[in-house]
Amino acid sequence: MTLFEPELGTPAAPSGPLVRVRAKVAYDGTGYAGFAPQPRQKTVGGTLAGALEKALHHPVELTCAGRTDAGVHAWGQVVSFDAAADGFDPKRLQRSVNKMLAPSIAVRSLEAAAPGFDARFSAVSRRYRYTVLDAAVADPFLASTAWWVDKPLDLRAMRLACDPLLGEHDFASFCRVPKDKPDASLVRRVLDARWEVDEHDDGQLLRFWIEANAFCHQMVRSIVGTLVEVGLGKTRAGELTSILRAGDRAAAGKVAPPHGLCLWEVTY
Amino acid sequence: MTLFEPELGTPAAPSGPLVRVRAKVAYDGTGYAGFAPQPRQKTVGGTLAGALEKALHHPVELTCAGRTDAGVHAWGQVVSFDAAADGFDPKRLQRSVNKMLAPSIAVRSLEAAAPGFDARFSAVSRRYRYTVLDAAVADPFLASTAWWVDKPLDLRAMRLACDPLLGEHDFASFCRVPKDKPDASLVRRVLDARWEVDEHDDGQLLRFWIEANAFCHQMVRSIVGTLVEVGLGKTRAGELTSILRAGDRAAAGKVAPPHGLCLWEVTY
Repeated sequence: MTLFEPELGTPAAPSGPLVRVRAKVAYDGTGYAGFAPQPRQKTVGGTLAGALEKALHHPVELTCAGRTDAGVHAWGQVVSFDAAADGFDPKRLQRSVNKMLAPSIAVRSLEAAAPGFDARFSAVSRRYRYTVLDAAVADPFLASTAWWVDKPLDLRAMRLACDPLLGEHDFASFCRVPKDKPDASLVRRVLDARWEVDEHDDGQLLRFWIEANAFCHQMVRSIVGTLVEVGLGKTRAGELTSILRAGDRAAAGKVAPPHGLCLWEVTY
Repeated sequence: MTLFEPELGTPAAPSGPLVRVRAKVAYDGTGYAGFAPQPRQKTVGGTLAGALEKALHHPVELTCAGRTDAGVHAWGQVVSFDAAADGFDPKRLQRSVNKMLAPSIAVRSLEAAAPGFDARFSAVSRRYRYTVLDAAVADPFLASTAWWVDKPLDLRAMRLACDPLLGEHDFASFCRVPKDKPDASLVRRVLDARWEVDEHDDGQLLRFWIEANAFCHQMVRSIVGTLVEVGLGKTRAGELTSILRAGDRAAAGKVAPPHGLCLWEVTY
């Protein structure tokens, strides 16, 4: 018996027992209007749910660990959803959706999870990576994954400026307040924030790693934008503390472009 | 005085003294019909020459170190051409063409060379890199730069199979004979051929490095295709010597796809 009724346009919900599924997903966010499904837009979540529905023959409601913005990438996004338990075959489902989603989206793992598992609310922390190419000339192979800054950056100052971010703070200076929840708390706990350097023939490839219990909207990109201004000498490293205390969006630097950002890992 | 005559469609050749120019170029070959300019095709050479002509206001005849095929990339392609010596400013020319060529092509360096310098005939050796992702799941960020092989490869056998390639041989088994020169020599001297392994979360990222005085058409991709068959256990490592001696295109394995290949460096 198939639960999919093509004549009706929308497949019927599974009527039998369900299994909660957990999947780890990588995607190149170029050309997608972000993760969150939106009508008449090509989104990562919409595309992923569509492939799962085709393979499962029933509707799928996705929950994700971090709703990435348009152009933002993921290496270790985590999603959860319910599937009909009858005939559930995780390996076959993964193979089948990966064929539909290639090459921009890849389900890296997929398995049955505990019944209460929720990709968003069960998450303990999220880790993001932001890549900056600091070089006189752009790199065609990093065009869609690194922010190219053609002036020399003072890495020592950028590293000093990371320290005030650690710990629990109100990140109002670095966050866009959600319109539908103007009173939502912007307090977040940053567990790690540091710059690593990778070799690059024509300059230096800077990787900003930041881990927090959760992030508010545009938080990583606002922080990176401010840290790069420190690297350019426009803002002093010591000013980070006062920018953070100001609790004012105007105090921080510009928002770094989305394509350098990647949701790297989620911890449960 | 400008030498460019837009009314006539084609700019006039420079009439004054010339300077021989040498440039190092990186490009993402995705979407290009190879390097060599061809009528009504988007080629790397045609695009690059077009940008140089716009900036220099005179026609440009490009010579390159290695004519890469459709879909093949370069990190250190070298080109040479003549420019009008009057007002020649290498830094400004590089900046100006890079603005026109971004993001898929980048001129990494550009400078005046000795008058007799020729990107093709002055080259002593070429070094290519071929990337294979050996993993159960594809990687969206390597979709256009690595050949994804979803079965486990025996790296030890692939390394053993490299040894017979070293030195001077007739590479007829690994080369497409040029139609216009059916009697051309296919003897080449391989200076280095080895596999390196980079870390990858979901498998192993294999880099095949090969350096030779010169390469005949499809030589690297035919060698990689054969080495991967060795890695899959379809061909024994010891067979490489007899494949090489056969002097017959049919003796070797399939040609590896173009997108894993990158012209890495040219030595003069």
